[in-house]
Order: sequence, then structure tokens, then C-alpha cells
Amino acid sequence: MTEFDFIRLYLQCQQQDSELVLGIGDDAAIIRPRNGYDLHFSTDMLVGGTHFFPDVAPADLAHKVLAVNLSDMAAMGARPRWALLSVALPELNKDWLTAFCDALFTLAARFGVTLIGGDTTKGNWVFNVNIIGETPYQQALRRDAAQAGDDIWVSGLLGLAAAALDRHWNKVTLPATVFAQCEERRLRPEPRVALGQELLSLAHAAQDISDGLAQDIGHILKASKVGAEINADLIPTLTALAQQPSLTVAQLRHWLLAGGDDYELVFTATPAQREAIIAAAERTHTPVTRIGVITTGTQLHLHDHAGNVIQLQQQGFDHFG
Amino acid sequence: MTEFDFIRLYLQCQQQDSELVLGIGDDAAIIRPRNGYDLHFSTDMLVGGTHFFPDVAPADLAHKVLAVNLSDMAAMGARPRWALLSVALPELNKDWLTAFCDALFTLAARFGVTLIGGDTTKGNWVFNVNIIGETPYQQALRRDAAQAGDDIWVSGLLGLAAAALDRHWNKVTLPATVFAQCEERRLRPEPRVALGQELLSLAHAAQDISDGLAQDIGHILKASKVGAEINADLIPTLTALAQQPSLTVAQLRHWLLAGGDDYELVFTATPAQREAIIAAAERTHTPVTRIGVITTGTQLHLHDHAGNVIQLQQQGFDHFG
Repeated sequence: MTEFDFIRLYLQCQQQDSELVLGIGDDAAIIRPRNGYDLHFSTDMLVGGTHFFPDVAPADLAHKVLAVNLSDMAAMGARPRWALLSVALPELNKDWLTAFCDALFTLAARFGVTLIGGDTTKGNWVFNVNIIGETPYQQALRRDAAQAGDDIWVSGLLGLAAAALDRHWNKVTLPATVFAQCEERRLRPEPRVALGQELLSLAHAAQDISDGLAQDIGHILKASKVGAEINADLIPTLTALAQQPSLTVAQLRHWLLAGGDDYELVFTATPAQREAIIAAAERTHTPVTRIGVITTGTQLHLHDHAGNVIQLQQQGFDHFG
Repeated sequence: MTEFDFIRLYLQCQQQDSELVLGIGDDAAIIRPRNGYDLHFSTDMLVGGTHFFPDVAPADLAHKVLAVNLSDMAAMGARPRWALLSVALPELNKDWLTAFCDALFTLAARFGVTLIGGDTTKGNWVFNVNIIGETPYQQALRRDAAQAGDDIWVSGLLGLAAAALDRHWNKVTLPATVFAQCEERRLRPEPRVALGQELLSLAHAAQDISDGLAQDIGHILKASKVGAEINADLIPTLTALAQQPSLTVAQLRHWLLAGGDDYELVFTATPAQREAIIAAAERTHTPVTRIGVITTGTQLHLHDHAGNVIQLQQQGFDHFG
């Protein structure tokens, strides 16, 4: 199989959409953007050995490489529309590619995303997705819009992917059922795209949690020139994980606050929107939890239910740490 | 230096442009597209050991990774506007990154391109650029628009990069001055962006030559459902290379027709546009040469000045051949 066979077999069989003038198969794809909409651009690269294990199932990998990009669109409140995929593979294995592409297009179709381009080259397991989304003019959720007095919310459950990873590395033991639930979140993160779009009219600032809550909310605080108070005991996680007797409080807190790979949203909104946010969460079947408040300071302060200050050893994932 | 230091130091210091609502520093960049323009999207990935030598100078690598993407925009007649860069590096070396970013931004500025996003991760020398350009509605140069009777033109000189590569691999010997000229084209291809935009109103179909002329024009023939007659002796190359007594005719023809890495344009246009095309080439300081004609068949026929048929062993570069 050549590169061109691969493109013809797997990538040129999609449905066209109304703004797509020209899809895969030329030097570039052509889009005619809709009037009244801003376009959003983001990219994430996954590297074998760094972001995934060498024996990862192709369907899991395909899901994750697109999902982490969809999560960036969710964080902007954007509707994802188009994607480009670059892959470096040691060989073109038909079974592997079939499983990869099936999972990729399943997820893409579920979110209304059309693959419009890419590159296929020889190399050692690198996957880069470029995603393009849209929001109505001026409505994007940005990191620089948090205001003192805002509630801080997170979607879903945090810490599961980090717990699964530490189990892989034999740093902890977990019951098989707990590990399976954590592993499912690590392999198959669910991008919060529907919630993100509902939040356009409700939230001030938003960001997705990819490197750890403490580090990622830090980007909002810096961009918005505000501080935050977070009660770490309010951060939602899997109950069965939190109740594991073999785990220390410090271990669990590390996963929740600095573990990363969560692909949940952290967002801020005025307390006047609490009911509307809960209703939006219900409409989109996305759990949300209030964990703190934005303050006039510039620091992130963490405490527990008893009011004790929590000091983190590490804020989050550093790719070159 | 962390990933965030890198982004702040090197990537957030650019000028904004009028359509850029939000640049680097959030989950996504935001563009407000101009009315009346289509957007073009393309991506190319360069992998260490596959596309460049491990000891490549960072400035040369930066030039090439952006230039090959600019070349895709040139092939559509598009004006390049924005780019995203994903890199996988084993470490963040300040001197290396400074040289890389200086060259990248020099080339970006020369073509009016703003870097609007990217990803930095740990890995083994992979560089992916995503480029976005624009053309007025309906005016893009596409592969499917060649017509029987069209002239076939190429820009610049072909075969130089392939000759330099074969010299690196000690397959041939070349005088130092000839090698230096070939190596300069291999390392620093000049994207034909200005010519591409001039061709919007003059040419029918266009494509850039990245995998070898024979293979790349094959994409035009297939998309346009036409054939071609090309006189291989008309294909322009470096005179000093063509005149090397130690080279066989077959060797030279392989470089010209199937070598790849040229990043020149091949395009088709009605003979009525010959004078206008030559004038456009002069305005943009880009040499152009007529090498053949589009036919009503479906095959590419190659011959020499004497009319002898040329059979190619290999049409062009196959990434998984």
C-alpha cells in the first residue's frame, strides 16, 4: 500500500459539508467561511512513548488524538468543524490503519467534523491533529475574561487518567474495577463540546484541563489578572478511587490537582448564573461541580474542608521537566 | 526552560494582523475571515532521519519546514496568512531554538504569515506546520482544471535537491561549486507564492513538485481526466549539473522527473496566455519554462528532443516504498 492508496481508501470517503469547497486531494483544502462566525484554530501532537504506550490499540489512539483537539474547541465554546491529520508511521499496516481510521471517523462524525487534509510520512509514531471550529462573532470563551467574585466550576471527574497512569507504572495498586474505570477515562476522554457551546452565553472564562487543574487554572488567573480560592475537597473524582484505603490523601490530591490528561473544562461564571449552568449541564448530560471562587489577588490558594492550606509539590505536567 | 517559557519568549512577540482576533496563548487562536475570500488549509510534517539529516542547521530546518507549506499555498494561488507549528524535540536547547525561531520568523515575515498556534512536546525531531491561506472566491488553482491543448509549464530549475541528496549518499560525485548550488536548493527551497498568485487569472491547473515531476503532474492528469506529452529535454535544470561529464543521461533524467524536493510549480494554461505568463514570471522574478502539452488521453508520455520514448523506472518518491 502506498501513501496515495491510504489517502484514497481511508480519507476520501467522507461526506462533504456546506462550507467545504474542496476536500482532500489537492495541495490544500478550500473552505468558504460563513459570515458572522469567527474561526478557531488549535493543534495537538501525540508522540509514541511520551503520550501513549507502544502497544496502544489503534482505535483508542485515534479516539484520543482527535478528542484532545476537540477538547480545545470545547474550551473556547466553539463548534468543531474541520480537522487535518499528520501521521508518521514506520509502515502502512492495513489492519492497524483500518481500526485507526474507523475510530477516527466515528468520533469525527459524532462531533460533525470533516477531515479536510493531512500528511502521511515514514517515522516513529507521531500523530498531529489540527482542528478548526467556529463561534458567532465575539462570543468565544477566553482565558482572559474571569472576574473577581466568579464561581469556579469543573466538568466531569478529575484525576482518573493520572491514577490509571500511575497504576501502569506500578506506583500504586488499584482494584481491577477501579482501574478499568480510570483507564477508560485515560484512553477515551470525552470532549465537553456540547457543554462548551452552552456556556458561551453563561460563563466568563474557560480552559480545558490537560496538564493538571492547578497549572491550567493558572493560565486563566494570569490572563485575567485575578486570583482563586479552591477547596480541594470539592474537586469531583470517582468515589471508589477516593475511598481506596491504600491511597494517601497527598497521592489523591496530586492526581486531582496536578495529574493532567483529564480533558474536562474548568470555567468561571457569575453566581447569578448558577441555576442556568446546572440546567445547561443537565441538557448536555455533563456533570458540573463548583469548587471555588475567583478573587482580586493574583495567586491560587488551595485549602481543604477544614480550611487547612494545601501546598502542591508540582502544579502540573511539564513536558520538559 | 519550560514549554511555557518557550512559547512566551519565542512565539508571543509577533505583530498582530487585522483578521487575527486572538493569537497564541489560549486554547485556540481566533480568526475573523474576510468576506469574499476562500480559506485554504494544508499541512506538511518533516521527520528527522526521513526528511532531514540529524545535524541539519536549525535555521535551514526552520526555513524548510515553513517553505514546503508555503509551496502548497503557492500551488493553489493562495496568499499565505497564518500558520501553526507542532514540534517534538528531545530537549529545549536555547541556542538551537533561537536560531530555529529567528529563521522561521524571518521567512514568515517575508511572506506575511503570522504564527497563531502550536504544540511543543517531548519527542524525536518532528516538525509539523499547518498553513492557512486565502484566495478571492472561486479563483483557486486546482488540480482538476487542466484542459486538452494547454501548455505545461514549470517554474525554476528541477533536480537540484535530488542531486544534492545523492551526493550526500555518495551515489555520485559533483564538483564543490555545483554541489553547493544544489545543496542550497535542497536546504532553502523558494516557495513560488508570488507567481502562484499571478497565475490565478492565467493558468488552469497547478500543483507543486514535491515528490517528483512525473508523479506530481500525474495528480493533475488524474484529477482533470487528461493526458500529457512532455519533452524531458526541455525540463530546466542547472546548466553546470546537466553538463557534468561523469553523469549518465538516465541519472540526470531520474533527478528531473522523479527526484522530488523541488518545490517548484507545474501548471497548465491555454497557449493564448503565453505572453501574459512570461510577463507575470518577469514581474515576480521567477523563471518559467514550457515543457509540453496536455492531451486528450489519460497517460503521461515522456520523450526526448529526438522523439524517443522515455520509460521511467520510478515515477517519484514513495514514502513507504
